[in-house]
Amino acid sequence: EVVARVSGIPTMARLPHRETADGLDAAFVGVPIDTGTSNRPGARFGPRQIRVESAMLRAFNSSTGAAPYQSIAVADIGDVNVNLYDLKDTCRRIREAYRSILSTGCVPLTLGGDHTIAYPILQAVAERHGPVGLVHVDAHADTSDVMLGEKIGHGTPFRRCVEEGLLDPGRVVQVGLRGSSYSADAYAWSRAQGFRVVPVEECWFRSLAPLMAEVRAQMGGAPVYLSFDIDALDPGFAPGTGTPEIAGLTPIQGVEIIRGCRGLNLVGCDLVEVSPPYDTTGNTALTGANLLFEMLCVLPKVRYL
Amino acid sequence: EVVARVSGIPTMARLPHRETADGLDAAFVGVPIDTGTSNRPGARFGPRQIRVESAMLRAFNSSTGAAPYQSIAVADIGDVNVNLYDLKDTCRRIREAYRSILSTGCVPLTLGGDHTIAYPILQAVAERHGPVGLVHVDAHADTSDVMLGEKIGHGTPFRRCVEEGLLDPGRVVQVGLRGSSYSADAYAWSRAQGFRVVPVEECWFRSLAPLMAEVRAQMGGAPVYLSFDIDALDPGFAPGTGTPEIAGLTPIQGVEIIRGCRGLNLVGCDLVEVSPPYDTTGNTALTGANLLFEMLCVLPKVRYL
Amino acid sequence: EVVARVSGIPTMARLPHRETADGLDAAFVGVPIDTGTSNRPGARFGPRQIRVESAMLRAFNSSTGAAPYQSIAVADIGDVNVNLYDLKDTCRRIREAYRSILSTGCVPLTLGGDHTIAYPILQAVAERHGPVGLVHVDAHADTSDVMLGEKIGHGTPFRRCVEEGLLDPGRVVQVGLRGSSYSADAYAWSRAQGFRVVPVEECWFRSLAPLMAEVRAQMGGAPVYLSFDIDALDPGFAPGTGTPEIAGLTPIQGVEIIRGCRGLNLVGCDLVEVSPPYDTTGNTALTGANLLFEMLCVLPKVRYL
Amino acid sequence: EVVARVSGIPTMARLPHRETADGLDAAFVGVPIDTGTSNRPGARFGPRQIRVESAMLRAFNSSTGAAPYQSIAVADIGDVNVNLYDLKDTCRRIREAYRSILSTGCVPLTLGGDHTIAYPILQAVAERHGPVGLVHVDAHADTSDVMLGEKIGHGTPFRRCVEEGLLDPGRVVQVGLRGSSYSADAYAWSRAQGFRVVPVEECWFRSLAPLMAEVRAQMGGAPVYLSFDIDALDPGFAPGTGTPEIAGLTPIQGVEIIRGCRGLNLVGCDLVEVSPPYDTTGNTALTGANLLFEMLCVLPKVRYL
Amino acid sequence: EVVARVSGIPTMARLPHRETADGLDAAFVGVPIDTGTSNRPGARFGPRQIRVESAMLRAFNSSTGAAPYQSIAVADIGDVNVNLYDLKDTCRRIREAYRSILSTGCVPLTLGGDHTIAYPILQAVAERHGPVGLVHVDAHADTSDVMLGEKIGHGTPFRRCVEEGLLDPGRVVQVGLRGSSYSADAYAWSRAQGFRVVPVEECWFRSLAPLMAEVRAQMGGAPVYLSFDIDALDPGFAPGTGTPEIAGLTPIQGVEIIRGCRGLNLVGCDLVEVSPPYDTTGNTALTGANLLFEMLCVLPKVRYL
Amino acid sequence: EVVARVSGIPTMARLPHRETADGLDAAFVGVPIDTGTSNRPGARFGPRQIRVESAMLRAFNSSTGAAPYQSIAVADIGDVNVNLYDLKDTCRRIREAYRSILSTGCVPLTLGGDHTIAYPILQAVAERHGPVGLVHVDAHADTSDVMLGEKIGHGTPFRRCVEEGLLDPGRVVQVGLRGSSYSADAYAWSRAQGFRVVPVEECWFRSLAPLMAEVRAQMGGAPVYLSFDIDALDPGFAPGTGTPEIAGLTPIQGVEIIRGCRGLNLVGCDLVEVSPPYDTTGNTALTGANLLFEMLCVLPKVRYL
Ligand SMILES: [Mn+2]
Ligand SMILES: [Mn+2]
Ligand SMILES: [Mn+2]
Ligand SMILES: [Mn+2]
Ligand SMILES: [Mn+2]
Ligand SMILES: [Mn+2]
Ligand SMILES: [Mn+2]
Ligand SMILES: [Mn+2]
Ligand SMILES: [Mn+2]
Ligand SMILES: [Mn+2]
Ligand SMILES: [Mn+2]
Ligand SMILES: [Mn+2]
Repeated sequence: EVVARVSGIPTMARLPHRETADGLDAAFVGVPIDTGTSNRPGARFGPRQIRVESAMLRAFNSSTGAAPYQSIAVADIGDVNVNLYDLKDTCRRIREAYRSILSTGCVPLTLGGDHTIAYPILQAVAERHGPVGLVHVDAHADTSDVMLGEKIGHGTPFRRCVEEGLLDPGRVVQVGLRGSSYSADAYAWSRAQGFRVVPVEECWFRSLAPLMAEVRAQMGGAPVYLSFDIDALDPGFAPGTGTPEIAGLTPIQGVEIIRGCRGLNLVGCDLVEVSPPYDTTGNTALTGANLLFEMLCVLPKVRYL
Repeated sequence: EVVARVSGIPTMARLPHRETADGLDAAFVGVPIDTGTSNRPGARFGPRQIRVESAMLRAFNSSTGAAPYQSIAVADIGDVNVNLYDLKDTCRRIREAYRSILSTGCVPLTLGGDHTIAYPILQAVAERHGPVGLVHVDAHADTSDVMLGEKIGHGTPFRRCVEEGLLDPGRVVQVGLRGSSYSADAYAWSRAQGFRVVPVEECWFRSLAPLMAEVRAQMGGAPVYLSFDIDALDPGFAPGTGTPEIAGLTPIQGVEIIRGCRGLNLVGCDLVEVSPPYDTTGNTALTGANLLFEMLCVLPKVRYL
Repeated sequence: EVVARVSGIPTMARLPHRETADGLDAAFVGVPIDTGTSNRPGARFGPRQIRVESAMLRAFNSSTGAAPYQSIAVADIGDVNVNLYDLKDTCRRIREAYRSILSTGCVPLTLGGDHTIAYPILQAVAERHGPVGLVHVDAHADTSDVMLGEKIGHGTPFRRCVEEGLLDPGRVVQVGLRGSSYSADAYAWSRAQGFRVVPVEECWFRSLAPLMAEVRAQMGGAPVYLSFDIDALDPGFAPGTGTPEIAGLTPIQGVEIIRGCRGLNLVGCDLVEVSPPYDTTGNTALTGANLLFEMLCVLPKVRYL
Repeated sequence: EVVARVSGIPTMARLPHRETADGLDAAFVGVPIDTGTSNRPGARFGPRQIRVESAMLRAFNSSTGAAPYQSIAVADIGDVNVNLYDLKDTCRRIREAYRSILSTGCVPLTLGGDHTIAYPILQAVAERHGPVGLVHVDAHADTSDVMLGEKIGHGTPFRRCVEEGLLDPGRVVQVGLRGSSYSADAYAWSRAQGFRVVPVEECWFRSLAPLMAEVRAQMGGAPVYLSFDIDALDPGFAPGTGTPEIAGLTPIQGVEIIRGCRGLNLVGCDLVEVSPPYDTTGNTALTGANLLFEMLCVLPKVRYL
Repeated sequence: EVVARVSGIPTMARLPHRETADGLDAAFVGVPIDTGTSNRPGARFGPRQIRVESAMLRAFNSSTGAAPYQSIAVADIGDVNVNLYDLKDTCRRIREAYRSILSTGCVPLTLGGDHTIAYPILQAVAERHGPVGLVHVDAHADTSDVMLGEKIGHGTPFRRCVEEGLLDPGRVVQVGLRGSSYSADAYAWSRAQGFRVVPVEECWFRSLAPLMAEVRAQMGGAPVYLSFDIDALDPGFAPGTGTPEIAGLTPIQGVEIIRGCRGLNLVGCDLVEVSPPYDTTGNTALTGANLLFEMLCVLPKVRYL
Repeated sequence: EVVARVSGIPTMARLPHRETADGLDAAFVGVPIDTGTSNRPGARFGPRQIRVESAMLRAFNSSTGAAPYQSIAVADIGDVNVNLYDLKDTCRRIREAYRSILSTGCVPLTLGGDHTIAYPILQAVAERHGPVGLVHVDAHADTSDVMLGEKIGHGTPFRRCVEEGLLDPGRVVQVGLRGSSYSADAYAWSRAQGFRVVPVEECWFRSLAPLMAEVRAQMGGAPVYLSFDIDALDPGFAPGTGTPEIAGLTPIQGVEIIRGCRGLNLVGCDLVEVSPPYDTTGNTALTGANLLFEMLCVLPKVRYL
């Protein structure tokens, strides 16, 4: 039966709601926090608003021919039950929830939430898959040691991941970095780990398809995680986020990066830092929903018509 | 388990989602249309936004002691599948959906949607219960014969209902009427049917508890339907609606009217005309959610602690 | 022919547009400035936005039975051509434009614009009618001697009017005054002129109908001008204005004041200080449009059905 | 006389308002509907808001030297009187209104309104000019057979046009297509008709001047209609629309397309799908106003200084 | 020198900025957190936005004649340096900062921040003054034992205060309570402590001056703290807050409560829960600024002219 | 001590506030006016909002390695005390304030305010440095002779500057010009003076680094002033401005222009026309803050690490 787009309780992409990941090849899951944020909050409502705006999504990718729903079993499994008053406890809850999701072989597609969540998610991912490659799209490196004296926050997740051996540093790429910084050589730590750093200046005025060809070569066939901070995009396109930086990527480049991941052994993806109170038109959430759909379309088992 | 308010796929009042009304005493149901609107559209998103903002609702009524969830079975049964391109066909679909809901003995609590929907809902209600009493809270009488030459629209539902004998005209009260009008004696037709008309001027500066005592006497024990157009409230309190009129009711008076329906034989209720694009803070939808909760609390079988 | 409300080039109340006031009993006229404002600007767009929102207005007053369009000739005569770069020159242009309007016997209903405009309008009014009575509804007395050292601005018009003998001080009432002030006895100057000052505290929790009975007695049959600053209303009801003050009048009281002017010898009216950039829903402009319609309905020659 | 931009009743580009197209070479005309919309409504207010924001437009095109008002007679002829409650009847009214406009030899420049309106407009256009070429700029092909089971809506106009022989299929180009779709080969039907389909990916990172040279060659000297859906632009630039799709055209490319139509035998143009409730800054309407001015500048008889 | 209101770096009420409270009788101080919030965040920007909107404040209270700046030394001493990632550590920092402020005899007027902050502030207050009386204006009792399993949050401060003996329970009044609740007898715990509970229903339609006369009698001459949650006001007047509840107090009643505290031995005041991302017009912050000014005006040493 | 970004009274870039420019190498200074504006006002709040959003700025430029605060003494010296009611008097006040700032050898970095202010600033600059070179980034040439008959306004500053010999016309470049115009050869006057005019069409789709190499050659070692109107950027990126024109520069290009000024003998810079009421997300002000930081980073004495 045909159902009007405006109708119904909003699940991601109007998919069925399931209680668990059992039997699913991929699952959309929300992590509604913003308590790791340093500036504008609101990302706690990111999952809810992405679901709402995802009503625009249809079944096929008209550009690539991907037919995800004819290929794999997908559903929306709701949100992790977070603790808004204790960020460390929230990290524990996320880690446990993802352990459970991953145990079934399901690939989680995460609706954030602030970027803090990448740390406990990657704890669970590495527990199952070993140290993984990382495609990290962001305005910020998120590799600070501390924020306001604290180890856990949205500016530190990848520092923690390296310290715990969750990443394969030779297979980490960070794309879109920019903005003012706490030191003159802001990406020295990343480079010292062996990360490939692609400052935004290297992306200006050009297609990122060539970059992604190099990234695919770098990543090989081993497991890879894709973490996409919506603030990688220029705030002209994605105003609804907490720490915007000007002169960023375009949505076109964002789509190129994700489509460029086709063929990788993706074991998980996230789209984080959508902050609805600053998204006055809903279009940042809509952009997030579309990027998540593009991620779904490049998962290993998806067929192209 | 305690779940954070920001978490989860938004059903009304965070209730379970059910596919049908079977086994339910009361059900929240959405009718997402605005194609009967004469001015600002957007009410098609009313059900979705009311559900989103209803996350603030808790289990008990602190003011009256009502404990609805300990008294009756309630769920959210989703939306009627409307036809956005043919208003008359939409009316048919609504009528049939409500026939089905009412057939189980369930009381529908409707999330509108523009006021057109009251007409097909009352067709189904009268089919089951016979002509009903009506408590109609609104800035407008909604008794026009035609709008732009058409019989079906949000300004005509109660004219159609009278023509089809769906109402018991001696048990109809219209509260909050006001605004500029198409004729100098705007409520003549209502009065000619035997309706009690309460222009907003009779409500200014005073509690409506005495009025509701009279209404309860007028309604007696026979079936009553409650139809609440959010534009009955002053646009200072409910800006997110399509045809606002100044100098309206306060939310306090809105609550008084609903609480004043306690003891009536309510067979259905609606809250219509919430238009999210004009609800810049979400508070009109929040108001709608609270009014629907108050309606739930005065249903016949609800107990008070 | 019936025309949909959303259709057409927006004139006030969807009236015909005329180039001059010739042959009109009353005319809506805009004065699009905000260069007299001390805080938030934007009132230059007040006339345009009031016209846009006035599409909701119908032909009759359902509450009072007034039938203005069956009684008198009314049109929208457009805007005064202001000089945005020289406030004093703008005042000259306004004065001359109103001289012309008033010369035909037409009653101007002004869409402001900031309150500075009341000064040159009253120059023209007094030139024709002699010193007039004034019903001044406002959060502020607007009787400062200077603002930032300047004589002309939206905080000084009534001081200038008194200095020039344009008002009959024993027939001036100021209603709704409040807020923090530049001196402890903020209304001393007004009282010293013989104005009746009604601080907002005297209005709280009550109908203003009794006050207006007194005002009518005070005004008698001589010419009266009505000047209504939208900031007289509480910012909960009229957020779209430049210098809001909390704890103000309600729209109900605003309507009571205007309806209470029925029977007065009104020779001009204005509704000022609507600032669309701060009117996120359009409802402040809508309120202004309704108040202007109520003013039209109490003009001397209007009949009631 | 010089008139301040903020002053006056808002006609398109501050042009004179005329009742009919008699004696005009070109006419701006509004079609205020959104009842063909599948997602966010609001385009009914598109004509009104485009007029409001068009106050920024001046008389010459500084980039191309076009001097439209020194070349041809242009005016704003107001809106088609639509039926908001019956989309099919609205189509009939549009068709008749455009028959009348076209009968005088006037070129209509349409302010939409949702894209449904292109169907009845093209009925009138083909009636006068025979099957026409089409430059269709859009995120969507708008060639669905049905929407929610209905034949008429904003996703179907060009299917209907082909069925009725209103277009010359070998002279149809669709530019900017993208987004998720109902089938994997979303543009198969278009291609099967002989349309040239230019998916947005072929537009990324490049000037569209070369494309337009090809289009001009394709179109030749026969009549051409230009239909521009504002959602062709990326939602970063045009958020105020109903069905936004990410990674779209830039305004630069939009301007290139229109300027690239110079020399064509344009017999009509439209700019559709501006939805003011989602245009929080007014800049989508402003963009629409500028694109309409660019269309005016490339009409056949316009001279360049 | 006269300075335009729009000019200058925004301190509270355009007062001088001081580093410490030394030599001050009263000090405005901000506590920019929202990490104790259960629903909509944003109160971390409350102090900043209240300062911005406070530019409207002038030197005198036109209604009461209070002349605070001629009576006592007042300044803005900036914000407590909070830890956004650890709410318990933030509480420690607040407590220590207020110890320091209070040690000089200064009365702190706090710009919140969410209501969690009342707990550590009252720890410091009670340390200096012993158990204090409390005038608590709020939609919520804020006396929960835990929120999502945690002891510290914006729903628990007054429970913690009672447990630690910081309050004199016989001199506690809670005004404005309402909304749905977690138990049917939502205020039982408050009443069991000896608090006076004034549900909002007791406030509807009436002046609160009589209530405040009783409160003054109850409080006597011993130290009193005033804690004002902006959500006590109806969301029509104060939309910019995190957990709005309908049918609340009016700003008039809010002003009456504060003016009714004149004569009390006030040792500290706060205005909390202003959330700028939900305050689309700035008027909630403006309301907060005005209420803080009214609090300043009723401090013990302020003279009235 | 580390201080949370949300904390504290908002100075530019969280720098210390100083009363004067004494001892400073560079100073941020605000000029809060919009009384020179022809369309949307609001730029009077530009300085305040840029300061608020500048809380995101950190100490180093991660892209260029600039370390401004380790190189030169910088502070925020507040706002010029403008006269909102007399634009000519405001110009006098600005000229005198900048004379004082420049007398100490300090380089002013101005937060506008509308573009009128460039005229009196350049009067003071030329008084000290003689006729200067000018890098003018704008959608508009701002070289009109009069606006609405007046000589002073935001469309005329550079005409006045040339008339008074404040500029070295052979070292003036205007970048980004576009939009409809009052004459067909809109930039004839600029070219006649010897200005280099770079219409926006010459900037589309390309890096502006080559252009800036030419500009540096043109400017040589003599004093240069940089004036950046935020409306040079496309309104998709900078909606919060008064006279937006479509198809403009990107923030990337804006950054390239400023970074391309490194090595010039910059004696002053401004960033004008940010209008907060039209900046619904704060991101236009944030963009302005970042561009001002980039300007600071290219001042003559700044070192790069
Ligand atoms: Mn990140
Ligand atoms: Mn980031
Ligand atoms: Mn209704
Ligand atoms: Mn209604
Ligand atoms: Mn006033
Ligand atoms: Mn006022
Ligand atoms: Mn289309
Ligand atoms: Mn489209
Ligand atoms: Mn509280
Ligand atoms: Mn509260
Ligand atoms: Mn400029
Ligand atoms: Mn400009």
